[in-house]
Amino acid sequence: MKPYVIGIDMGGTNTAFGIVDARGTVIASSSIKTGKHSKIEDYIDELHTEISRIIVANDAEGKINGIGIGAPNANYFTGVIEDGVNLPWPTPIPLADLISKKFGIPCLITNDANAAAIGEMTYGAARGLKDFIMITLGTGVGSGIVVNGQMVYGHDGFAGELGHVIMKRNNGRVCGCGRTGCLEAYCSATGVARTAREFLEIRDEDSLLREYDIENITSKDVYDCAVKGDKLALDIFNYTGTILGEALADFVTFSSPEAFVIFGGLTKSGDYIMNPIREAFDKNIMKVFKGKVKILISELKESDAAVLGASALGWEIKED
Amino acid sequence: MKPYVIGIDMGGTNTAFGIVDARGTVIASSSIKTGKHSKIEDYIDELHTEISRIIVANDAEGKINGIGIGAPNANYFTGVIEDGVNLPWPTPIPLADLISKKFGIPCLITNDANAAAIGEMTYGAARGLKDFIMITLGTGVGSGIVVNGQMVYGHDGFAGELGHVIMKRNNGRVCGCGRTGCLEAYCSATGVARTAREFLEIRDEDSLLREYDIENITSKDVYDCAVKGDKLALDIFNYTGTILGEALADFVTFSSPEAFVIFGGLTKSGDYIMNPIREAFDKNIMKVFKGKVKILISELKESDAAVLGASALGWEIKED
Repeated sequence: MKPYVIGIDMGGTNTAFGIVDARGTVIASSSIKTGKHSKIEDYIDELHTEISRIIVANDAEGKINGIGIGAPNANYFTGVIEDGVNLPWPTPIPLADLISKKFGIPCLITNDANAAAIGEMTYGAARGLKDFIMITLGTGVGSGIVVNGQMVYGHDGFAGELGHVIMKRNNGRVCGCGRTGCLEAYCSATGVARTAREFLEIRDEDSLLREYDIENITSKDVYDCAVKGDKLALDIFNYTGTILGEALADFVTFSSPEAFVIFGGLTKSGDYIMNPIREAFDKNIMKVFKGKVKILISELKESDAAVLGASALGWEIKED
Repeated sequence: MKPYVIGIDMGGTNTAFGIVDARGTVIASSSIKTGKHSKIEDYIDELHTEISRIIVANDAEGKINGIGIGAPNANYFTGVIEDGVNLPWPTPIPLADLISKKFGIPCLITNDANAAAIGEMTYGAARGLKDFIMITLGTGVGSGIVVNGQMVYGHDGFAGELGHVIMKRNNGRVCGCGRTGCLEAYCSATGVARTAREFLEIRDEDSLLREYDIENITSKDVYDCAVKGDKLALDIFNYTGTILGEALADFVTFSSPEAFVIFGGLTKSGDYIMNPIREAFDKNIMKVFKGKVKILISELKESDAAVLGASALGWEIKED
């Protein structure tokens, strides 16, 4: 096996990439603007130029084992980005083929949350774990499920959409997926901001949050107020954490994991969010699983995590 | 590999067993009373005597590849029946060891719903499927999950307790597991009977069900009335099927299976229960999975299914 892999984190706005070694060190990284190119071929060209540049600069020519890409709606089995994503090009996009042909290096793709799970298993908090569930708390709620040491892709490559389990069957919030009451509508960073707006409208107590522009409130604002002891801000985290803890307790009945690994900006709110998660989890978990399941926080540096996670796919490629 | 396996279905009252060939034909079967023996050793002795008798009668000596047992709270990894079951002996019980020593034949055990899933995959509706979820509707709601052709056992052997996913977070029914609002409290045969009692108390319309002793009403009674067009009985099936369909839609987000296979007495109610399940499933499933997931009914004959399912474990044993 060659000593390096390339990880590419493809988002709607930016595409970050890096060269990673077997110990999970990002030895070089850079990024380009995804949206700059109206044609996918031009985007691939720029990506190739930039990645080739850092490969040469780091004396890594001929030493790349594989390229791994984390991208929205990316199907591991087909290598295709499917419909319904916020990218500047028409879908479906045969991304793995385009990349491996251009680079002359084998390429695997998967969605961001699965990439995060593989990264955590290869380099992070899930090293040595064979059964765990990755939960990513960002603009949405993503998940990657590992059973018996293997990623769960499902028959079509789209398993692990736990952000869209229904948590409120009556009068639930509208979700980006078109349904109502999904976990994601409550426990993403966006969900926290929605809860803040809802609480500020419905309740009439004083709160530091009332000094912010209500339409543009963020989960970071809620955190800043919680740190200052603001009761409403603390209630928002309790509400969010309770729903997430209840959801995790349900998820245990599925694959009985050793641990959940939580990743994303919301985890920076520390105990404000983690305590209510753990409390609701312990209160709601089935007796047979009690005390067996850890809730861990990701060990990957956030700025590197997406690239690291994607890069870990590059180790799955075996030489002929 | 030897040509036969033994399947043992161990329940609190009866233990059924049979010799099964590679095509899933039960070539001989019998049963003993589980509760008759106050010592586990005596139970194993009687089981050995009876099974040896049918082995000899069918000229199958030396031709048994392995013994598979489906039993409550049976742990596949350890071969042990864990605490909290309705059996006449103290737990934990090292069942696989006791059996394999007594018979001189390797033995694997798992819980009933997992055994059903393996049976369905080996001989039934799930032949050729690599990703499916078995749902058993009996006194409780059990489940067995297959991902990428492999049973999901989880890190401790207890994965697949989908009957205990919470479907009603507020004011839910008390469940046998000690919590409230579990799927099992609504969609088991017992759950259907509870719904019947609840509807009869709360609603005041006429119903054929009012002619039954309300305390002893069964899901079979509800079926009998539904066949006669009884509105209340039909509503009970609609209520039950809707909850189950909503649950199945959530389960898809986990492992994105090709199919669910539904097993158990309730499936005999046919379209009365299956139509509302399918309707709620289609209405609640996430768009990316729509139209991809089949809901199948078990193809195993109910009287044979438990023994067949258990027996399929016997094929997992490879000769040294």
